[in-house]
Amino acid sequence: MSKPGQRVLIALRKMIASGELAAGERIAEIPTAELLEVSRTPVRIAFRTLEQEGLLAKSTGRGYTVRAVSPVEIAGAVEVRGVLEGLAARQAAERGIDAEVRQALRECLDQGDRLFEKGYVVEEDLEGYHELNMRFHQLILTASGNPAITDALSRNDHLPFASVSSLAVDLHDMAREYRRFNFAHMQHHAVFDALVNGQGARAEAIMREHANATLRYAEVFGPAKTASEGLKVIHKGQTEDRE
Amino acid sequence: MSKPGQRVLIALRKMIASGELAAGERIAEIPTAELLEVSRTPVRIAFRTLEQEGLLAKSTGRGYTVRAVSPVEIAGAVEVRGVLEGLAARQAAERGIDAEVRQALRECLDQGDRLFEKGYVVEEDLEGYHELNMRFHQLILTASGNPAITDALSRNDHLPFASVSSLAVDLHDMAREYRRFNFAHMQHHAVFDALVNGQGARAEAIMREHANATLRYAEVFGPAKTASEGLKVIHKGQTEDRE
Amino acid sequence: MSKPGQRVLIALRKMIASGELAAGERIAEIPTAELLEVSRTPVRIAFRTLEQEGLLAKSTGRGYTVRAVSPVEIAGAVEVRGVLEGLAARQAAERGIDAEVRQALRECLDQGDRLFEKGYVVEEDLEGYHELNMRFHQLILTASGNPAITDALSRNDHLPFASVSSLAVDLHDMAREYRRFNFAHMQHHAVFDALVNGQGARAEAIMREHANATLRYAEVFGPAKTASEGLKVIHKGQTEDRE
Amino acid sequence: MSKPGQRVLIALRKMIASGELAAGERIAEIPTAELLEVSRTPVRIAFRTLEQEGLLAKSTGRGYTVRAVSPVEIAGAVEVRGVLEGLAARQAAERGIDAEVRQALRECLDQGDRLFEKGYVVEEDLEGYHELNMRFHQLILTASGNPAITDALSRNDHLPFASVSSLAVDLHDMAREYRRFNFAHMQHHAVFDALVNGQGARAEAIMREHANATLRYAEVFGPAKTASEGLKVIHKGQTEDRE
Repeated sequence: MSKPGQRVLIALRKMIASGELAAGERIAEIPTAELLEVSRTPVRIAFRTLEQEGLLAKSTGRGYTVRAVSPVEIAGAVEVRGVLEGLAARQAAERGIDAEVRQALRECLDQGDRLFEKGYVVEEDLEGYHELNMRFHQLILTASGNPAITDALSRNDHLPFASVSSLAVDLHDMAREYRRFNFAHMQHHAVFDALVNGQGARAEAIMREHANATLRYAEVFGPAKTASEGLKVIHKGQTEDRE
Repeated sequence: MSKPGQRVLIALRKMIASGELAAGERIAEIPTAELLEVSRTPVRIAFRTLEQEGLLAKSTGRGYTVRAVSPVEIAGAVEVRGVLEGLAARQAAERGIDAEVRQALRECLDQGDRLFEKGYVVEEDLEGYHELNMRFHQLILTASGNPAITDALSRNDHLPFASVSSLAVDLHDMAREYRRFNFAHMQHHAVFDALVNGQGARAEAIMREHANATLRYAEVFGPAKTASEGLKVIHKGQTEDRE
Repeated sequence: MSKPGQRVLIALRKMIASGELAAGERIAEIPTAELLEVSRTPVRIAFRTLEQEGLLAKSTGRGYTVRAVSPVEIAGAVEVRGVLEGLAARQAAERGIDAEVRQALRECLDQGDRLFEKGYVVEEDLEGYHELNMRFHQLILTASGNPAITDALSRNDHLPFASVSSLAVDLHDMAREYRRFNFAHMQHHAVFDALVNGQGARAEAIMREHANATLRYAEVFGPAKTASEGLKVIHKGQTEDRE
Repeated sequence: MSKPGQRVLIALRKMIASGELAAGERIAEIPTAELLEVSRTPVRIAFRTLEQEGLLAKSTGRGYTVRAVSPVEIAGAVEVRGVLEGLAARQAAERGIDAEVRQALRECLDQGDRLFEKGYVVEEDLEGYHELNMRFHQLILTASGNPAITDALSRNDHLPFASVSSLAVDLHDMAREYRRFNFAHMQHHAVFDALVNGQGARAEAIMREHANATLRYAEVFGPAKTASEGLKVIHKGQTEDRE
């Protein structure tokens, strides 16, 4: 995909995930192209991709509407991610982790330790965490030796919050975000311990629970905020890196 | 898809799953159309579908070759199915099974009891089992209330043996097939017991193990056969029923 | 314990488990000694042991009453056995099964195959199954390398049906008993497959479910009988073998 | 047990768990009575109790020796605790948590939040955590409705580190202890979330992993210390409270 195409796609995904584009809202090519300061072609292509991803629905006439994604639907997709990544961790532990993968996982842990040891986080830290988090998860997927897991995840990752490549951060409550991502990071420590000790069932159980870090823990580790204006979506996938 | 299109597709899937079309073998439109006594159009369309499913690969020139699907790859896909169907069973048990679903599951069990209670099976019984088996699994998927599971399964089901809609039966060793499918049927009984008693973890565990019935149990419950000439693939999906 | 002491203890356990001695019934030394044709001393000692096991309760005066063991209590103990034996299977798979244990487990499977392959069972077959079943379970406990599992099980095994050393067989419905124990035997095959392939999570899941074979499956695999006169308890523990 | 008896028992357990009394060391009544400034009777009784618990072994002559408890043995007992408490959490979630239990669990969480929110802990905080931790675990055991779990745990709890009533704290590395117990506290949050939402499999998985907080996490969340002089054992059981 072209560079402007990628940029448009990511911008629209963020606007949907953050609620800036609300469910049911109509969206059309020309105003979107103007808003994002691009030509109509990349917008048209992005709309089709988002339709396939289930985030837009074709409406009568020429436009699209933002599809309502219910909390139940998202929770379901998070469960799916949990069992699939759990399976990857189990199979990786059963096959055994080689020295190179072990080292790469270890580096993710060390990086995370440095982010969280100061007792608070700033926005930049969470971007750093997001990057190492994706690396950590990808290493486990690869170490599983089971490409069918990645295939199945690819169907699941388009929903907001369902993918490990999408984090929503509330910049208005960084104390809660510290608790949440610090807990997620400690789960990385625990899953690493299970992986390198060949404890497949344990690695699977931790990884399944860990899927709740993207969404559920936001509720568990702090009171729900009434306004969402501080919400920032970090959404940095492999596709984006390829630009 | 047109009726001849469906027929061609199913015939080719069977020939690949059974090894009649071996991995690496070249396959071309004209001889295939002649063999199956259809025009070239449905063959061309079927080839494209099979390419998407990962069963054919485009070769140099105009034709395709049968892609090698390794046992490891299939085993991986079976694991993926196990965790996804396990999740469906868990969520169905946690939500609770309503009277209608309970009745429909009950009927699958009763039908199966009638097939297996005579102590042996004939080919026709296994076709009956195959049909009720697909119904049983579909009921649990629906009862989970989580459409993301079905989405993720759709990526997984194209591999031979990975889908519940594909059974390979060895007509030369019906005693083994009786043991295998009777065991699978008894697992249906156990998962039903867990579902109607709200035992989510138990339902999940049984369903995960049950995924091994399609392939692994063929090895567990009998000596491997050297020749495969008795192999029959029952592959009757929803698409086929729609003809 | 003396030989008559053992014999009295086992006879009384059977009478309680079978309901011959009903919950709430009073039981006294002299008539029991006469019934079993022994002196009062072994009866007195057996009563104290059964009190510790929770099967008898001291009643006012000098005697004991048979304690009511509720179905919920038994179901709870079966769950406990399931998770403990499941843990043993997981740890055995994670440590790896050596050639000797593998061979011993294999022999249990072969013996069971011979019992069930004829398509029906007689009482003697179930005694044979009971013996190989205890051997199979003991092998896994030992292979776990975790003696704390055996310790914890020892607190659990005194309840009727909770111990693998206690089987209740309904001689009036041997068709159901065939289905039930044949299924249990096939679970042995599956857990063996998981153990020798280093699949800890899978071995654990099968073993947990397998704990239901002693009691729950009697209900799952056949209609409950109104009369219990055909019930026979096979209760043959290591202690008994040591006589 | 008498008050001095309890005090002697607890003092000796601590000395063994901390290594002050090393494995293989001989221990005799008179010097112990002098050291603890009590008469010989409570010491004699305590020795017998510790023998039953497996911490002392009768040596030739009149004395006892401290039994060697291997790390493997302790790790095994921790696994046993994990599956048993995991079962309790699963059954509690499946039965449903009533308003009163929910409130009592909620209070444990709030208390813990207050301890950890300041970003560090002092010794007194860990004593507070220890007390609320025991309460939290006991509430789940009771909510399971399965007394067989408590019975099985009673066999397991005598080993150092195996019981929830025994915490070993390293006063020389309170930063590590903060990380460790804060993580354990966040697992309490997650298990509460699973319990009140009827997610049995999830509650079980978290609780199983949580058993590693007593021992394993000390290694996971910080470098091993060479000297143990800062080790403090908090060991406050129900028996002690009954004084």
